[in-house]
Amino acid sequence: MPISLGELATRFGCDLDGDPDILVNSVAALINASPDSLSFLSNPKLKKQLSATQAAAVLLRAEDADECPVAALISKDPYATYARMAALLHPSPEVIAGIHASAVIAATAKVASSAQIDALVFIGERTFIGERVYVGPGCVIGPDCKIGDDSRFIANVTLPRQVQVGKRGLFHPGAVIGGDGFGNANTAEGWVKVPQVGGVRIGDDVEIGSNTTVDCGAIGDTVIEDGVHIDNLCQIAHNAVIGAHTAMAGACGVSGSAVIGKRCMFGGQSGTVDHIRICDDVVISGRAMITRNITEPGMYASHFPSEEIDSWNKKVARFRRLDGLYERVRKLEKGEK
Amino acid sequence: MPISLGELATRFGCDLDGDPDILVNSVAALINASPDSLSFLSNPKLKKQLSATQAAAVLLRAEDADECPVAALISKDPYATYARMAALLHPSPEVIAGIHASAVIAATAKVASSAQIDALVFIGERTFIGERVYVGPGCVIGPDCKIGDDSRFIANVTLPRQVQVGKRGLFHPGAVIGGDGFGNANTAEGWVKVPQVGGVRIGDDVEIGSNTTVDCGAIGDTVIEDGVHIDNLCQIAHNAVIGAHTAMAGACGVSGSAVIGKRCMFGGQSGTVDHIRICDDVVISGRAMITRNITEPGMYASHFPSEEIDSWNKKVARFRRLDGLYERVRKLEKGEK
Amino acid sequence: MPISLGELATRFGCDLDGDPDILVNSVAALINASPDSLSFLSNPKLKKQLSATQAAAVLLRAEDADECPVAALISKDPYATYARMAALLHPSPEVIAGIHASAVIAATAKVASSAQIDALVFIGERTFIGERVYVGPGCVIGPDCKIGDDSRFIANVTLPRQVQVGKRGLFHPGAVIGGDGFGNANTAEGWVKVPQVGGVRIGDDVEIGSNTTVDCGAIGDTVIEDGVHIDNLCQIAHNAVIGAHTAMAGACGVSGSAVIGKRCMFGGQSGTVDHIRICDDVVISGRAMITRNITEPGMYASHFPSEEIDSWNKKVARFRRLDGLYERVRKLEKGEK
Repeated sequence: MPISLGELATRFGCDLDGDPDILVNSVAALINASPDSLSFLSNPKLKKQLSATQAAAVLLRAEDADECPVAALISKDPYATYARMAALLHPSPEVIAGIHASAVIAATAKVASSAQIDALVFIGERTFIGERVYVGPGCVIGPDCKIGDDSRFIANVTLPRQVQVGKRGLFHPGAVIGGDGFGNANTAEGWVKVPQVGGVRIGDDVEIGSNTTVDCGAIGDTVIEDGVHIDNLCQIAHNAVIGAHTAMAGACGVSGSAVIGKRCMFGGQSGTVDHIRICDDVVISGRAMITRNITEPGMYASHFPSEEIDSWNKKVARFRRLDGLYERVRKLEKGEK
Repeated sequence: MPISLGELATRFGCDLDGDPDILVNSVAALINASPDSLSFLSNPKLKKQLSATQAAAVLLRAEDADECPVAALISKDPYATYARMAALLHPSPEVIAGIHASAVIAATAKVASSAQIDALVFIGERTFIGERVYVGPGCVIGPDCKIGDDSRFIANVTLPRQVQVGKRGLFHPGAVIGGDGFGNANTAEGWVKVPQVGGVRIGDDVEIGSNTTVDCGAIGDTVIEDGVHIDNLCQIAHNAVIGAHTAMAGACGVSGSAVIGKRCMFGGQSGTVDHIRICDDVVISGRAMITRNITEPGMYASHFPSEEIDSWNKKVARFRRLDGLYERVRKLEKGEK
Repeated sequence: MPISLGELATRFGCDLDGDPDILVNSVAALINASPDSLSFLSNPKLKKQLSATQAAAVLLRAEDADECPVAALISKDPYATYARMAALLHPSPEVIAGIHASAVIAATAKVASSAQIDALVFIGERTFIGERVYVGPGCVIGPDCKIGDDSRFIANVTLPRQVQVGKRGLFHPGAVIGGDGFGNANTAEGWVKVPQVGGVRIGDDVEIGSNTTVDCGAIGDTVIEDGVHIDNLCQIAHNAVIGAHTAMAGACGVSGSAVIGKRCMFGGQSGTVDHIRICDDVVISGRAMITRNITEPGMYASHFPSEEIDSWNKKVARFRRLDGLYERVRKLEKGEK
């Protein structure tokens, strides 16, 4: 569905420098855009790509407009405006109300008439599926779940039981929400499993990445607040709380009962110990390991950049002998040799 | 099913300080327990929550009983006793014998008549499913597997082929047991895949977390011994051996042919190199990387706690210049400047 | 299907020291081989196992042949030759053309008549499945995918949409190829999701491990070139490019728009930041974190081997006080105390 630049400018509050009747039907990167696509310039490093673009129009900041060889849509925040325009040009697939013949729906489950239950889906007892929800092929939504309106489960997502999801949730393939937490009591006869009797409560506008796991609470619920975005292969342990609008990149681990503040950002492969508290507006650098409470907003890190291995190994050897170096300095200070 | 405190005390060998006829029907945390629930106090940090609890009874140590405002069940190990009582109050869902009409069972598979095969399950050729086994929606148990009595596969678990599972196993959603190990021979024409012809042997009372992967052996089997508990998103590579009653937190990686002892504990995001041996009773701290054999029980680590990023980066810069510092100290020792 | 040593020698260009009529029907490790199996010796550490082997024959280098107590097949690269012989003795399961009655195939999908679509599979609109492709139980191959000849999807693999796969691909259970990348624009009202409109292009002879995730591109495609092998639980973010014949061990993370060269090797749990470039023939050590472009072939690292925790913690404490040590050395150099 092509849209005119004039309509885009009006809808999204941009200034337009160009012909308002030009039509675009897709988005594309500056370097490989075609004359029917919209591109954008947000990252200053890509500015050199602007002059050669073949796009119909480019969304950019006012200060970059002079160098735009095609129509310019001017925005204070071109990346956010791009996100919204792209959603208009590339909408999510339409939800087609109905239940596929191959889906298995428990007798006491309730599915809103506007929801789409796709092929080979399982819906458990007492589960409620809201309006316009999409449940894709192979998903398992077990008993006692409640799914808010307009949420989407792409494919092969598993909610074993007792998960509440708000509105407009987006769950990518392989995500497991509400599996057992890891609780075991150590005894002379080995581990005794601690039954995990809590559930998971997920707010509105939450996105959970592919193959990410969010465990149910041991007692009480694990909580993901509104607007949280979690990337792939992350682990959120039992009874963790992830504050609203926090974003977490791939392969992060949040341990049990950790309480993460609002608007935090976690870099990839970072992790926390259990029962920790992190205040609002904290940025965790990639690969950081958080072992103590964080009470001040800011950026935190504990990674080492890699280098050529011989040089690295020498540094590690130095590090391992630091004790001796301290001792040698102490001797020097005392005037000894 | 409500249970009296008197019956709990008798069954689990606790002293009861309170009315034996009081009934409980669930477990709850101290701070949000209701008058029909049982709570427990094990972690000393939570003792301050004891005085205000609304629980019917609290399971605790003798030395904490005086301060308990409600009935007290006294145990030397309240956490382990809690685990057992919780299992009684919150039993696993009943296994309802039968095969769902949508399940696909290969002609030569054998399913015990007391087992439950739920919706949309696939069972492969020559596979044997034992008594009272539960196979949840979407699970794939491929050919040549043998599943011991009372094991449970929650949902969307995959055993592609040739996996033996003992009794009372518990497999969480998305777990993959018996996928190919990672073996490739380097040649001038690129990698040649080494066929992975082994299987996986899993003992009794083993729990495998959501989206964890356990590879089949390259030649011979990968082995998980009795009573092992593995959390989510862990990777157990081909021909690894995990000793009995070892527990592993989320996102750990055990490399190929590693042999891990009995009763070990692995903190989250830790890992080992391949062909390593770790003796019994070793505790690996979170994020540790094990690169050499461990022959003595104890606790091992290699993580750096994170801190504010500017301060961290200064330390890393110091670390990177350690060579120079050693040189300067050497000069000082020689009386040079 | 037993094969004679003579035939193996001829087919794979080995010298045979032994009876060419001896038959083998399987491969086995030196220590537990039976008289109808073929073993191999490649790792010098295993040479001591040679003398006691019960194998019918051992594949090994010329210099080890003298000590072989049974028939010897002599190869310059016994591991690669073993890989090829093992593939002959243990072929992948035969692909049996046809579509299982429980599979759900969209009206506009095209499935080659020689392909096998197993039970409970979903194939989406406009998707094309090539000759002799195997799609195992529970797999979801969504709309607009194109699967090259002889590729195999073992079980519960998910390709949500718009993925092109070359010939002879091998996809292990739980892998998710083409899930949304992680793109969000930060605004005063919270994160605005950036639609991920690209796809994934995968070359020939690519293997993707269990529960690994490869995201679709934000704009344009994520690319995995020919002959790449990726182990379990890895994350390949949007618009990354993985060069031909690169191999990646378990739990690695490649961030968005990273460009990885050809013939690279990544050790387990290693990772990169986004928009990075790594040249051809780079070896990344396990757990390394790559934060800058690598322009020279070689081996790179940033891990610390673990040690006993008290000793480790002392070293970390020393590290944290390095600033002070530098200061003390500076004072000594100035002749101060």
